[in-house]
Amino acid sequence: MTATALPPSLRTRVRRVAELASYEQAALHAILDAAYLCHIAFRDDKGSHCIPTACWRIGDHLYIHGSNGSRMLKQLLLDGDACVTVSHLDGLVLARSAFNHTMNYRSAMVYGQFEKVSDIGQQHAAMDALMEKLAPGRLAQVRGGSAKEYAATTVLRIALDECAVKQRTGGPLDDAGDMAHAVWTGELPFTHGRGAAIADALNTCELPPYAAAWGTESA
Amino acid sequence: MTATALPPSLRTRVRRVAELASYEQAALHAILDAAYLCHIAFRDDKGSHCIPTACWRIGDHLYIHGSNGSRMLKQLLLDGDACVTVSHLDGLVLARSAFNHTMNYRSAMVYGQFEKVSDIGQQHAAMDALMEKLAPGRLAQVRGGSAKEYAATTVLRIALDECAVKQRTGGPLDDAGDMAHAVWTGELPFTHGRGAAIADALNTCELPPYAAAWGTESA
Repeated sequence: MTATALPPSLRTRVRRVAELASYEQAALHAILDAAYLCHIAFRDDKGSHCIPTACWRIGDHLYIHGSNGSRMLKQLLLDGDACVTVSHLDGLVLARSAFNHTMNYRSAMVYGQFEKVSDIGQQHAAMDALMEKLAPGRLAQVRGGSAKEYAATTVLRIALDECAVKQRTGGPLDDAGDMAHAVWTGELPFTHGRGAAIADALNTCELPPYAAAWGTESA
Repeated sequence: MTATALPPSLRTRVRRVAELASYEQAALHAILDAAYLCHIAFRDDKGSHCIPTACWRIGDHLYIHGSNGSRMLKQLLLDGDACVTVSHLDGLVLARSAFNHTMNYRSAMVYGQFEKVSDIGQQHAAMDALMEKLAPGRLAQVRGGSAKEYAATTVLRIALDECAVKQRTGGPLDDAGDMAHAVWTGELPFTHGRGAAIADALNTCELPPYAAAWGTESA
């Protein structure tokens, strides 16, 4: 992978609405880093599955984790063929004709095989990076993972080698013949916000900076 | 399907964290109806795919649509085995120990085979229902679909027969041995909001009620 572009494969060359495709690494990273959740498509003997799970990026890999007993993690290691998708929906786009309505969004797809993070140092670093993403600075405050907890947890990662990014922004694109049709046109935006931190009933400590800042930032 | 419960199958009986599972129809409908986007897992000769697309519910079916040329729609009709997932992420849950951190969310999975909505009356009704979901009342204002536009569009639906719902709310659940560890605990919530409607540069009409109300409601 070069510093600025992702080499598209036959799978990741966007086939529909190809003018929206972007293979730039910066866009890919921005979409992945804005997400806390991805959806993973994989297959086992019962068929196709689409499972939401937490994800985080370190460099040129996307990471997931779970219990050693997770059927998804086990299957991803048995038959690593997977597709991971992150999507952010930004707005409804209202055009003059019914069929020209569309949505604004940012989405990234990653194809490939997951690999297990077996090295204990790498596993610790990966879990630390997840905590740092969720709540910067909190890692030093929590009770850290025990050897037993780490041993019961599987961390997987997939290389950002075969990826596709699709994004749409802006207003509607109407047919020339529809421009005289009198109806309001524009965008109905979604916001991705953060509410004020909610202390647990059993909490005994003061709000830390990352929690105090949470409700004042957009997600 | 009964009026109040979904019969779980071997695929939809939630295997991990089974205490979070719910098979109630009302919860399923609420999660699906709050979504504009689903992720669909399916497989073709190139592997597994996870594609985001617009979705809407009519009764006991979830609908999607697209161009007749869409490789996903064609593949879903060739090999209907699919899994459709809708997820809403509601918050990060911060516990006293690193490994007890979790997320609050609502998710629904639908397994089954998509079928084509071939009847032209049903196709019109389905597309009308989508418009009514996006912008209630707008259907009467837009330039309606032409016979050519309908002919170029495929509408598929999947029965809500084999479904699983998973939800989590509330604060962290710490181990008894961690309760004396001094760190703030609670939830960092995500909000799913709506921004004020943005008129297109070429718009010439007044803001209709559904667009005026958009920015004042939560999504």
